[in-house]
Amino acid sequence: MSAGAIFVWELLGTAVLILLGNGVVANHVLRKNNGHGGGVVMITLGWGFAVFAGASIAAPSQAHLNPAVTLGLAIADKTKWGDVPIYIAGQLVGAILGAVLCWAAYKLQFDDHPNRDETLGIFSTAPQIPNKAWNLVTEIIGTFVLVVWILLSPVYAESGGTPNFGNSALGYAGVAFVVLVIGQSLGGPTGYAINPARDLGPRLAYAFLLPIKNKANPNWGYSWVPVVGPLIGGALAAFVFLAVHNLT
Amino acid sequence: MSAGAIFVWELLGTAVLILLGNGVVANHVLRKNNGHGGGVVMITLGWGFAVFAGASIAAPSQAHLNPAVTLGLAIADKTKWGDVPIYIAGQLVGAILGAVLCWAAYKLQFDDHPNRDETLGIFSTAPQIPNKAWNLVTEIIGTFVLVVWILLSPVYAESGGTPNFGNSALGYAGVAFVVLVIGQSLGGPTGYAINPARDLGPRLAYAFLLPIKNKANPNWGYSWVPVVGPLIGGALAAFVFLAVHNLT
Amino acid sequence: MSAGAIFVWELLGTAVLILLGNGVVANHVLRKNNGHGGGVVMITLGWGFAVFAGASIAAPSQAHLNPAVTLGLAIADKTKWGDVPIYIAGQLVGAILGAVLCWAAYKLQFDDHPNRDETLGIFSTAPQIPNKAWNLVTEIIGTFVLVVWILLSPVYAESGGTPNFGNSALGYAGVAFVVLVIGQSLGGPTGYAINPARDLGPRLAYAFLLPIKNKANPNWGYSWVPVVGPLIGGALAAFVFLAVHNLT
Amino acid sequence: MSAGAIFVWELLGTAVLILLGNGVVANHVLRKNNGHGGGVVMITLGWGFAVFAGASIAAPSQAHLNPAVTLGLAIADKTKWGDVPIYIAGQLVGAILGAVLCWAAYKLQFDDHPNRDETLGIFSTAPQIPNKAWNLVTEIIGTFVLVVWILLSPVYAESGGTPNFGNSALGYAGVAFVVLVIGQSLGGPTGYAINPARDLGPRLAYAFLLPIKNKANPNWGYSWVPVVGPLIGGALAAFVFLAVHNLT
Repeated sequence: MSAGAIFVWELLGTAVLILLGNGVVANHVLRKNNGHGGGVVMITLGWGFAVFAGASIAAPSQAHLNPAVTLGLAIADKTKWGDVPIYIAGQLVGAILGAVLCWAAYKLQFDDHPNRDETLGIFSTAPQIPNKAWNLVTEIIGTFVLVVWILLSPVYAESGGTPNFGNSALGYAGVAFVVLVIGQSLGGPTGYAINPARDLGPRLAYAFLLPIKNKANPNWGYSWVPVVGPLIGGALAAFVFLAVHNLT
Repeated sequence: MSAGAIFVWELLGTAVLILLGNGVVANHVLRKNNGHGGGVVMITLGWGFAVFAGASIAAPSQAHLNPAVTLGLAIADKTKWGDVPIYIAGQLVGAILGAVLCWAAYKLQFDDHPNRDETLGIFSTAPQIPNKAWNLVTEIIGTFVLVVWILLSPVYAESGGTPNFGNSALGYAGVAFVVLVIGQSLGGPTGYAINPARDLGPRLAYAFLLPIKNKANPNWGYSWVPVVGPLIGGALAAFVFLAVHNLT
Repeated sequence: MSAGAIFVWELLGTAVLILLGNGVVANHVLRKNNGHGGGVVMITLGWGFAVFAGASIAAPSQAHLNPAVTLGLAIADKTKWGDVPIYIAGQLVGAILGAVLCWAAYKLQFDDHPNRDETLGIFSTAPQIPNKAWNLVTEIIGTFVLVVWILLSPVYAESGGTPNFGNSALGYAGVAFVVLVIGQSLGGPTGYAINPARDLGPRLAYAFLLPIKNKANPNWGYSWVPVVGPLIGGALAAFVFLAVHNLT
Repeated sequence: MSAGAIFVWELLGTAVLILLGNGVVANHVLRKNNGHGGGVVMITLGWGFAVFAGASIAAPSQAHLNPAVTLGLAIADKTKWGDVPIYIAGQLVGAILGAVLCWAAYKLQFDDHPNRDETLGIFSTAPQIPNKAWNLVTEIIGTFVLVVWILLSPVYAESGGTPNFGNSALGYAGVAFVVLVIGQSLGGPTGYAINPARDLGPRLAYAFLLPIKNKANPNWGYSWVPVVGPLIGGALAAFVFLAVHNLT
């Protein structure tokens, strides 16, 4: 697949993922919404099926949508290292675009909302108890589960080791279920970024692009944790995959 | 497929969609119900699987159930322009029939309910913060996600570009998941009509057909937004599809 | 398939369906439970996937589990009329057995519970607003949706008109989704019996078998509504199927 | 498959199952979490899809992840008796590892939490009303449903009687749905251990390994119930399977 096509598919898929993922948090947080106070079940379902929607759309590029997935697949020798920067560029630009679209869909609600400190959390994650070392551990573990599942689940075994959900109408529902359960089971402490583009792209949009009045501080001091943690988790998952996948 | 068959399948599928979709809101809103106050997770699950039920039934006509989907598929050259009016007629008549059946199932609850202003919202959408331009933007974005997913997800790629879920028992679960997440993620500001027939049909039924005592104003001033917004969103999705679907 | 085999598979499947379906209501209602007050989303998910579990088990007999389904399939010429009594006998005995198992699983909770009037509702349905004519309408509409979906969804079309989910690991998830949405969308007024065996079997068990102290009145005066309504709804669905299924 | 491979796959799958399953309870129980007070729907969804994630990963060893499943499959002649100890060893070590990873992900929350009596329940089950005989009955019934479903559902029939989800991207979603409904329908009285390794492994980790300050009593007096009950339930399911599976 050409570099341009990878870029476009990853951009489109990640934009839909972030539009829907940031959207469900906006619906929960901002006060004049049908889903205001919808709660953690709504938020984790929303993010789970946001992945389903975005990943189905990006099927031609194998739907990484996440630099930690791209890194894990490259280490596992399933994605060419030369394509890695293209993937990540598409993901980051898509994430920024998705955040902008989310703002547009909720523009009136942003203008109305009285609590400026709540608006950053719509776009990017923050820890419940700040402690960079242990927050990093939580992000590593969550991303490890995602990437080790992608590498070891039968979907991949079926297709000779190449990630390929494309021939199954519902193949991407499996990833949605895994992201749903990671959110419910490991999202408590840090909000399960588990994806550097998902966290950094919207944070950049929030800080520099979006015309939200009276913004909160974008919390750059924490921003490297949801980038570095997922990359470590994805790499560890790839090492485990390489160690075990031939065991029979 | 004959025009008559298209009309019947779209009518049946849309009637089931609207019966179940309006039904879940009736269950939540009207006070003497097992699901009273069931909340946004119940409502969005209900609408999502209402699409599953209706779309499975209308599989022979490819289950548009939505004029915005029909328009998008026509622009994308997947539905004949000559069939478009038949599709839309079946959808609108089906939506009116579904609303009538919903009223019949909840007749005792409608008679009992003390708050007349809440009954319109069972049938048709309304904005949380009225502003026609931005409400339109929200409806455009929500419908864009629905139609771009329908056009780009592997289900369609599999079948040579013709929408076809018919050979998969669970194929329509994918659309249900996407409608679920659109509801949770983009339904906050305007109640995600994302379908002109879904909004206009029940509004017509409410205004002119249903024997509900002490009705609320049908809010005709807003009624064009959930018709025009979805049509624009569906068209935009088709243009994006045409621009990208051959990228490899 | 032999009459004995039909009886056993329907008995087993219906027993699991009722054990799990009555169980989720017991969990919600009885006060010393982890799921006490779990609410309508839990109850409707529980009943939906109770159908998935029971139907998967009864796949060899095509998993009717419901006299209204059996009647609809017989009218639609998909089940032999001679087998109908065997199906219904297996369903009714299975439903009674499932209710007994539910009582055993929650025996300590039944002994502890202070409110005798709440215990009947664990086993059988009751209307929120009693009115036999309109309660009947609600049960007819709910069952119509279930049976028309079973008759018209692609699963059946695929297998040449014979109900057959047996070759699909997840085929029965479709029925679960439809029962879930019927519960959320049409279960408000009467508790969606939509199945004569599901309501009558546990009511018989409650009235005559279960050693619950201080029982409530089994409400025999209402008990025919959730039997007759579903049978009418199933028959109507079969007539609609016969009218439309050859339209192309 | 070699004993070593069985051990590794069962260990990996069970570790992911317990990490996610214990995690969702930690998210609900510990006060400084995004999912604090998320409730029984979140917890049962979390455990259900924890099974999906763990089982997909352990597909090469047929994903027992549960000594009661292993015992049932051995009685049903689908697993070699000689492999049984290997399976159980992998499951138990995996469960302990999963509990340790859960503690690491929630380390800051454990340090912060004021109520020591709540922390055991994150790892192991306890009855709402203590009574060992009837608690045993509840665990037997819950596990019976799980194992009889695994033995009788079409997934197994398809593959000639050998448990095999490996060729289906979403095959394991079926088990997730069944575990979800068991949790919602039969989890009220005892917290649905339905798996000796799921209960004993984390209890051992809690008692002897985890550096949680101010631990609660590990309740060894009850600990045999969620081990023995599931084994009895799994064995009973296998006997029912042997009695009925050839009925046609």
